[in-house]
Amino acid sequence: MSAKRQLHLNINILHSGFSPAAWRMEGSDPRASFDINHYINVARIAERGTFDAIFLADQAAISDRVDFRPLTSLEPTIVLATVAAHTDRIGLIATASTTYNEPYNIARRFATLDHASGGRVGWNIVTSADLSQSRNFGLEKPVAHKSRYERAAEFTTVVKALWDSWEEEAFIGDVATGRFVDPARVHAIAHRGKYFSVHGPHNVPRPPQGHPVLVQAGGSDDGRELAAEHAEAVFSASQSFEEALAYADDLRGRGARFGRAPDSLLVLAGLATIIGSTEAEAKRRQEELRELIPLEYSLARLSGVLQIDPKQLKLDEPLPDDIPLPADGGHTFFQATFALARREGLTVRGLIRALNGGTGHRTIIGTPEAVADDIETWFRAGAADGFNLMPDVLPQGLEVFVDEVVPILRRRGLFRQDYTGRTLRDHLGLARPANPYAVAAE
Amino acid sequence: MSAKRQLHLNINILHSGFSPAAWRMEGSDPRASFDINHYINVARIAERGTFDAIFLADQAAISDRVDFRPLTSLEPTIVLATVAAHTDRIGLIATASTTYNEPYNIARRFATLDHASGGRVGWNIVTSADLSQSRNFGLEKPVAHKSRYERAAEFTTVVKALWDSWEEEAFIGDVATGRFVDPARVHAIAHRGKYFSVHGPHNVPRPPQGHPVLVQAGGSDDGRELAAEHAEAVFSASQSFEEALAYADDLRGRGARFGRAPDSLLVLAGLATIIGSTEAEAKRRQEELRELIPLEYSLARLSGVLQIDPKQLKLDEPLPDDIPLPADGGHTFFQATFALARREGLTVRGLIRALNGGTGHRTIIGTPEAVADDIETWFRAGAADGFNLMPDVLPQGLEVFVDEVVPILRRRGLFRQDYTGRTLRDHLGLARPANPYAVAAE
Repeated sequence: MSAKRQLHLNINILHSGFSPAAWRMEGSDPRASFDINHYINVARIAERGTFDAIFLADQAAISDRVDFRPLTSLEPTIVLATVAAHTDRIGLIATASTTYNEPYNIARRFATLDHASGGRVGWNIVTSADLSQSRNFGLEKPVAHKSRYERAAEFTTVVKALWDSWEEEAFIGDVATGRFVDPARVHAIAHRGKYFSVHGPHNVPRPPQGHPVLVQAGGSDDGRELAAEHAEAVFSASQSFEEALAYADDLRGRGARFGRAPDSLLVLAGLATIIGSTEAEAKRRQEELRELIPLEYSLARLSGVLQIDPKQLKLDEPLPDDIPLPADGGHTFFQATFALARREGLTVRGLIRALNGGTGHRTIIGTPEAVADDIETWFRAGAADGFNLMPDVLPQGLEVFVDEVVPILRRRGLFRQDYTGRTLRDHLGLARPANPYAVAAE
Repeated sequence: MSAKRQLHLNINILHSGFSPAAWRMEGSDPRASFDINHYINVARIAERGTFDAIFLADQAAISDRVDFRPLTSLEPTIVLATVAAHTDRIGLIATASTTYNEPYNIARRFATLDHASGGRVGWNIVTSADLSQSRNFGLEKPVAHKSRYERAAEFTTVVKALWDSWEEEAFIGDVATGRFVDPARVHAIAHRGKYFSVHGPHNVPRPPQGHPVLVQAGGSDDGRELAAEHAEAVFSASQSFEEALAYADDLRGRGARFGRAPDSLLVLAGLATIIGSTEAEAKRRQEELRELIPLEYSLARLSGVLQIDPKQLKLDEPLPDDIPLPADGGHTFFQATFALARREGLTVRGLIRALNGGTGHRTIIGTPEAVADDIETWFRAGAADGFNLMPDVLPQGLEVFVDEVVPILRRRGLFRQDYTGRTLRDHLGLARPANPYAVAAE
């Protein structure tokens, strides 16, 4: 690996933090997840730490367990437009589903956000697998896995074509002649596919970044193919170093088949953190958070993820052997949960304890040095190009990371001292896509 | 009319101004319509003038005549989220179509915007009639008028139900017990209708305003019915005082049939302005703007609006007698154009001149006193509760209005000296809708 490789850090603003009990910790504002100022505040702290981007997940339905914990709520593109106005440099990645949106609307919203933020935007492409979302969009059951991914790939192709439909030189704005736009440089896309017919052209000039950065979290085979074809940054959920290396290799191999260069596709590993000034303090913090999670919540969540009746779960026995893997196996958290229980032969109580109310992502519990060591190891070995951080509690867990871990990473020459560019592509070291019409004319 | 009636002023940010040549005027930035700072700047000027709101129209397709004039481009909810972050009090009204969106997505985006702006948001409900939009959403021709309005009414009903699906007291956030939300106060809406099946509940707490203010521009019979049932402010396009009075009466009569009180439905008349310090100066400004509009543009636009071949238009002859009214007669600008030509027996050249590159809305050309007199007359007689202003050139035309017309309106006791409330409902004097679940429980 070259010394010029640059470590990347995103903060995943999971409500009040990854722990379901984060909102109950001293210093937390229970209402934070509904408060735009929480997102602004977290983004500013991350910008002080010269993070690449903030990231917002999304789903267009209420979660099951709102009685005990914050939920996905405020719509991410609106939140990020607000955050953009309160920040200068940090990238802004919003999730939007290809399953229950139209490509023209999504192209436009992200292009507008890219213009409004001076080129700081990324789109996390997801499909929507769960029943609760399908029932908000006229369907009695979720769209099948294969159709979702086919639609996602076609959707993304259409969105990119719309972003490219304005050449860079399309805007003239010549006061003397009265020519505003050169219509010869604004192109209909005339897309007719299996899922979409979109004539175009777009009604927004090409985004400052050419394309907002395309992000994906490809877990399943179809997901990895989508990522390999379109994504420029991939959020991975590998539980171990070996898994992460294999995942990165697999993805780069798939990318090569789409003609992608290895450095055009960054792997950002999910990393949950519980940081203390000593290891003992970090462990005490972990215990404190665990004890604040109601057992009723943990049991309901586990049975929900496993899609079984809660009565099948006996606290002091292992998971029943006959729990089937759902046919639609794309759910990362499910897979991680399942694998952990089987691998370690845990009782239900032990599994709940091991999951730690977590997100299915790897969790480091330790000192700032320990966190920096782990990050360095993974980064130098190529198991990850960076991390999508999920601190236990927000903003506190991020503040500690920025104040204690970032300086170590900087001292070790792993992480930027300051921003050197203005766009998210600049931060991530990703090339600005050429406009195909400009290329054709050369 | 009671002395307590309050005049309302919106600014319709039509790109660089209502004149197609606005972007060519001295002091204009040709690129303004694509620049988020233009919208922020205009909003701040309007806020200095204690306007009720800024308003953004929308369409999800490129306009025909982009070669000569600015187009509807940046997506309004993203623009308004940005503007919200740069303003404190002014209302923010965004257009979104019920034809090519899903109610769950729209409910969520406007609820989020209302939370992010502290209750300053309005939704202008439109249907999408034109071919260029339908072709961006998989259709070879526009949805029929009747279906569009049926869908719009059902769409609006669903959106309101989603906003109401969280009771005000649903959020608990009790750190001691770990109860975050009371699920008994968050309700599935289980809507099953002709166009939509939406199970709900919403995943966003009830907006600060209860509902963002619902705005509509009901011209056709179906449009007036939609407005009478759902709208709280209606943009009218009446060309004359008599028309405006008749329109307001008609709308309030229809509203009464839906059980609406007269003061729950405000009529805001479209008003284009060209202001000069003398009448002669205003007329010179009008001439200057006229001369900056290329004839090629005017002919192309006129034939487009009339849906005829441009060759049928002879500059020095009247409009051909056999131009049919389109079956789908909801297009306000078309109707105004047609009526004007017929009424005044104008030649094509004369019609172009009379249209003045305009929007189909009434235009006042004159001094600040003359503009204030006109506003006062309409307002006191009940022909309008306020105005949706379209200055010729932005920001200049608005600056003149704020600096020269607003002080006159204030001296006459017609317009607020300062904001007295914080939400758009406060500014408009509209009641906050009660939550039906709370009412049911009383």
